[in-house]
Amino acid sequence: MNGLSRAAIIAVGSELLTASRVDTNSLFITDRVNTLGVDVVFKAVVGDDREELAGMVRLALTRADLVICCGGLGPTDDDVTREAAAAAVGLHLREDEAITERLRVRFKARFTGEMPEINRRQAMVPDGARVIENPNGSAPGLWIDVENHAVLLLPGPPRELKPMVDGLVAGLLRERCSGRVLMRRVLKIAGRIESQTEEELMPLYVRWRNWPIPVEATILASLGQLELHLSARAPSGDEATAVLREAVEDVIKVLGADVFTTEGRDLEEVLGDLLLARGFRIAVAESCTGGLIASRLTDVAGSSRYVERGVVAYSNEAKSELLGVPSALIAEYGAVSEPVGRAMAEGIRSQARVDVGVGVTGIAGPGGGSPEKPVGTVVIAVSVGQTVQTRTARFRGERDQVKYQAAQTALDMVRRLLLPGP
Amino acid sequence: MNGLSRAAIIAVGSELLTASRVDTNSLFITDRVNTLGVDVVFKAVVGDDREELAGMVRLALTRADLVICCGGLGPTDDDVTREAAAAAVGLHLREDEAITERLRVRFKARFTGEMPEINRRQAMVPDGARVIENPNGSAPGLWIDVENHAVLLLPGPPRELKPMVDGLVAGLLRERCSGRVLMRRVLKIAGRIESQTEEELMPLYVRWRNWPIPVEATILASLGQLELHLSARAPSGDEATAVLREAVEDVIKVLGADVFTTEGRDLEEVLGDLLLARGFRIAVAESCTGGLIASRLTDVAGSSRYVERGVVAYSNEAKSELLGVPSALIAEYGAVSEPVGRAMAEGIRSQARVDVGVGVTGIAGPGGGSPEKPVGTVVIAVSVGQTVQTRTARFRGERDQVKYQAAQTALDMVRRLLLPGP
Repeated sequence: MNGLSRAAIIAVGSELLTASRVDTNSLFITDRVNTLGVDVVFKAVVGDDREELAGMVRLALTRADLVICCGGLGPTDDDVTREAAAAAVGLHLREDEAITERLRVRFKARFTGEMPEINRRQAMVPDGARVIENPNGSAPGLWIDVENHAVLLLPGPPRELKPMVDGLVAGLLRERCSGRVLMRRVLKIAGRIESQTEEELMPLYVRWRNWPIPVEATILASLGQLELHLSARAPSGDEATAVLREAVEDVIKVLGADVFTTEGRDLEEVLGDLLLARGFRIAVAESCTGGLIASRLTDVAGSSRYVERGVVAYSNEAKSELLGVPSALIAEYGAVSEPVGRAMAEGIRSQARVDVGVGVTGIAGPGGGSPEKPVGTVVIAVSVGQTVQTRTARFRGERDQVKYQAAQTALDMVRRLLLPGP
Repeated sequence: MNGLSRAAIIAVGSELLTASRVDTNSLFITDRVNTLGVDVVFKAVVGDDREELAGMVRLALTRADLVICCGGLGPTDDDVTREAAAAAVGLHLREDEAITERLRVRFKARFTGEMPEINRRQAMVPDGARVIENPNGSAPGLWIDVENHAVLLLPGPPRELKPMVDGLVAGLLRERCSGRVLMRRVLKIAGRIESQTEEELMPLYVRWRNWPIPVEATILASLGQLELHLSARAPSGDEATAVLREAVEDVIKVLGADVFTTEGRDLEEVLGDLLLARGFRIAVAESCTGGLIASRLTDVAGSSRYVERGVVAYSNEAKSELLGVPSALIAEYGAVSEPVGRAMAEGIRSQARVDVGVGVTGIAGPGGGSPEKPVGTVVIAVSVGQTVQTRTARFRGERDQVKYQAAQTALDMVRRLLLPGP
């Protein structure tokens, strides 16, 4: 039997065809099967309809050698995945007494009374299928081998599906897959735009094309950062890992300190580690970001070791009373100005007796802009050691996008100031 | 010709088959076609592959009478949607000179030099198809009538696709659809769990089944709130709207003030309106929420009119220095205690000279828990008028989930205290 190499993922559930729900199980599954060298060639969502699903499974089997269905394994009439998959591959369902027994035991342990007969539907198994136990729910998964193809049925709830995929399913896949593993590294980059970065990396893309195994690179731009995804496929994980390690070094030679992580971490986590390494504590004074910087810093577990306090000084009185910004300074330069940003950073730092002070003041919009200071104008000041660094930026987008980019830039300014010197 | 009533949506693009990208155009399209009485019967994602896409369009035409493809209309070899769709319905492509001319003009206005010949691919149109202009990009859309079916091709970028759907496409759909419109209301509910709410609403579900037209209800549970989606389908929008208005009143009779919006608004917006209506200003003192409450309040445009300040008092010193919480109180009851939460709310309120003060202190985890005060324990205090309301809650989940639920509960407590009396 050739190894499985092309997968189709079918999410089952009428609720996934509404305007408010999106299938995300397929992202998790894609990640896991990619790692085992399997490409996803299409994805589909179908409602709780036996005919629709059977038709889609049949189509999938003509295009893919591994068909993964998620959802529709419950006990009710709406749950049609077992029947539809069995019909699509021409197999009969029979009750697996061992499963029925487990279901009865499980039911008794959780509810009073006997298990309703309808629940026995969850014990129906196509001839020759392999049962995949579900430690977090009643619906077992099923692995059905059909000539050189396989159909895999998994329950829909992510907390049931995920451990099953990472457990027995990964084992079965490893046995049957092509054997070429795919490894991935996620780099995140601050302070750069996509097109310029793409251009600077172009010589690397060329170099990586066949060297010694191909490295694929994808840039994803999101608010305030770029992600560079590198992947390599090789017969062994070690080989792919070694090539990726070199590729990451190549990127760092070009982009330097703009790369803030090579392991897919968040900026606030990276900054937290830098603060801990130096034994530094931080305090933030925010106006337009409205608490977002403090909230992001404190999203990190253990951040109470280095976040001392924050002040959201939305009114001018708050800036003067809480941060000691002279009202004359605000009157002279305006609340959104480098002198005021600097006074906020220094004020919070000295008041909190910490090593790093941050001050941010700006116009998040949609109101409040002027010709000299349009919406999106943000002043960021960072006080560390003997220096105060100040920057005036102009961000685009809606109010929440301005807030986010200002917070990202402030965190990144602190990060760069804390990097070990050359 | 019968009206179109069953749609299939196919998203085209190899990047949508990776682990990091999800198709969201289909949610927008689902919303719009639902409103015109069309159900979505399946969705699919295929890569930039002519054969795959043609096969999927053929399958879709056996299941749906309206097939909508998004993406793959660019000028390069990767863009296969025009060819695949034409092949699937057995039509030939011919160049539409008027489109070519528009492309040339557009190209000249944006770039220097002549338009590359490859861009003429975007002017290829199947015989008899209707061209849908794209005001925000170069790729026109196409509407292809095939007997009682229609195939619609739209560009992938949301800023191009959305105005096209809301413009000409909506007109074409309205002409060809069944004529029954679907209207929707989104209610959001705080302070309740799903199962209990579902049970209390059950008699309404029964009453709505056929009355005078059926109203469908779906509950979606998310962190800190429930959403109740009500929808009704009727020959006229007025009819559906009137029935939904009554259904909303029914829900409010049962759930009362737990419903914080009947128009799909966010809690912080609703609270902002209540503060403005009373002419009140608010200040918040946060420990475990770390600035999240202030950040959510200031996400709302115009919030500078009522948010005066916030303090993130992460350390005990900050609680005493910034909020005047006596260190003896912290020593006696612990930082996570009702007396300390109350002192935080009263401290920030009097210091900021505002009408509403909020204090939140708790253990977001993963560390810091104890048998009496496990991770997830959060004290919330709100000071308004002559009252201080205090509540100790125990939230489940990860650190960010505890933060979010604590913020949601705090905002909701303030909202209830500001509601007009009976």
